[in-house]
Amino acid sequence: MSLTVVGSIAYDAVKTPAGERERMLGGAATHFALAASFFDEVRVVGPVGEDFDEASWATLRTRGVNTDDVERVAGGKTFFWKGVYADDLNARETLVTDLNVFETFEPKLSAAAQACDVLFLANIVPDLQHGVLQQCTKTRFTALDSMDLWINIARESLERTIRAVDCLILNDEELEMLTGQTTTLAAAQQILGWGLQAVVAKQGKYGAQLYTADGTFALPAFPLAAVADPTGAGDSFAGGFVGSIAARGGPVTHDVLVRAMAYGTALASFNVEEFGTERVARLTGREIDERVSVLEQITALTGEAVTLRA
Amino acid sequence: MSLTVVGSIAYDAVKTPAGERERMLGGAATHFALAASFFDEVRVVGPVGEDFDEASWATLRTRGVNTDDVERVAGGKTFFWKGVYADDLNARETLVTDLNVFETFEPKLSAAAQACDVLFLANIVPDLQHGVLQQCTKTRFTALDSMDLWINIARESLERTIRAVDCLILNDEELEMLTGQTTTLAAAQQILGWGLQAVVAKQGKYGAQLYTADGTFALPAFPLAAVADPTGAGDSFAGGFVGSIAARGGPVTHDVLVRAMAYGTALASFNVEEFGTERVARLTGREIDERVSVLEQITALTGEAVTLRA
Repeated sequence: MSLTVVGSIAYDAVKTPAGERERMLGGAATHFALAASFFDEVRVVGPVGEDFDEASWATLRTRGVNTDDVERVAGGKTFFWKGVYADDLNARETLVTDLNVFETFEPKLSAAAQACDVLFLANIVPDLQHGVLQQCTKTRFTALDSMDLWINIARESLERTIRAVDCLILNDEELEMLTGQTTTLAAAQQILGWGLQAVVAKQGKYGAQLYTADGTFALPAFPLAAVADPTGAGDSFAGGFVGSIAARGGPVTHDVLVRAMAYGTALASFNVEEFGTERVARLTGREIDERVSVLEQITALTGEAVTLRA
Repeated sequence: MSLTVVGSIAYDAVKTPAGERERMLGGAATHFALAASFFDEVRVVGPVGEDFDEASWATLRTRGVNTDDVERVAGGKTFFWKGVYADDLNARETLVTDLNVFETFEPKLSAAAQACDVLFLANIVPDLQHGVLQQCTKTRFTALDSMDLWINIARESLERTIRAVDCLILNDEELEMLTGQTTTLAAAQQILGWGLQAVVAKQGKYGAQLYTADGTFALPAFPLAAVADPTGAGDSFAGGFVGSIAARGGPVTHDVLVRAMAYGTALASFNVEEFGTERVARLTGREIDERVSVLEQITALTGEAVTLRA
């Protein structure tokens, strides 16, 4: 199978209670691709500047990520984001967003990228996501991430784009904002009504939920004793989730999506253990399998029923 | 088996986006007892005033709750709480707290209440909880709830009381506040080190987690399309959780606690569907069993593993 991701490749400056990094490889497409690389060959589409260094190329290529569609913009600088996290890691403040080469990015996919079996649209301008969808005509499964910014300033474009994919992956609060519903279930049901096959509600440190026509699946996050840096957790989740779907042939059933939730959850948990791509870059498939096994154990509703009184 | 709960019986005034009630039966011991009444006979210990009306007595007694230890204080008024919830129901503001008869409450348990097999200490002053523990010398299982107020102003008393029970049930953020840890797992592990058998972290609308020496269990909340009033959800959870443990004889194993999590989650989900005790008061055991079955379905990690690339 073949998997294409379109999105940002970035340098991030991040400060958390666990430490800080002044310039590390980041970006949604980067985190997604590294996570998905354990499941399938991933082709990354996105721009970088002349400052994109050898170590960054090596991080992607060592994991077998195909960078043929990464556009190196002459005279340009790579997208840069700087943020600081609150003590409890639940809130973060953006200090700097330098779009740089991303400002004029218009995805033009190579024939190989367009021929993908599975497509992930990381969070970029909804109209650009829509343009990519129109370039990829042979997809078996398409998924999309977005953010509150586009709900606020480009709602119509975003809704048109969401209606054109198979799966929406969004934070639970954004799903509710997008639909005006007060619960995640009601929001997901409304969006399934737009014709999507699946809606995934990301709940940050609490886990994620899957909604399809066949039912609901809810998975807690993998319990960790320490979290270093949440940056890229959602994209790593998407990489494990979409990557495991890409790795299989055949129909994308509810059970395939359920198992994909476990891979997404495992990858996200590794991502946040260290800064940026540090942990996932040296991850092994065996470690992923072990963490999925633990997820099976800690979610197994064992014990026998009691007889109720009334 | 026999179950005693000590805590508040109250009248609540509540306003949420779904509506409002000016005066409805509430209080931690009330919500706990109604939820637990589906599993075992529950004896409630707590004070009410002369204003405690027939309808309120009937709500408790219709569900078979034993009110012999409810103290009716001559000339007193029942504890009153008034609060308003934010649009997303995640935050609430307390407008009025009239302790009334609760201000001078000193639990004196009858011999029958003291002879309980299982004891639940709802959120009251930690030293009062400790006094109740000393009165109950034949318990097989004891559990305690508390709140941020006591962590802030009575930490030593609270820790002494926690160290004397088998199980602590607390919000995840309160667990972290209590221990100074930054993750729920680290906080729970620290408290297990105090000699407790189990720690339950309540995560509000996201679910709950169980920590014991034998492992971790994480259960999402039951997905609801609409929530009317979260008041008492945590106490209803505790009622289902502790009630199902009380209903069984024998050792309180990890599996017994895991299954108890499902009963707690089911009861909490019914509680929030309507205001105050309205939904649980007319609940049936069959409805509880159905919701536990749905929880089993939506948490089952189905689907087959994929072969990882590296």
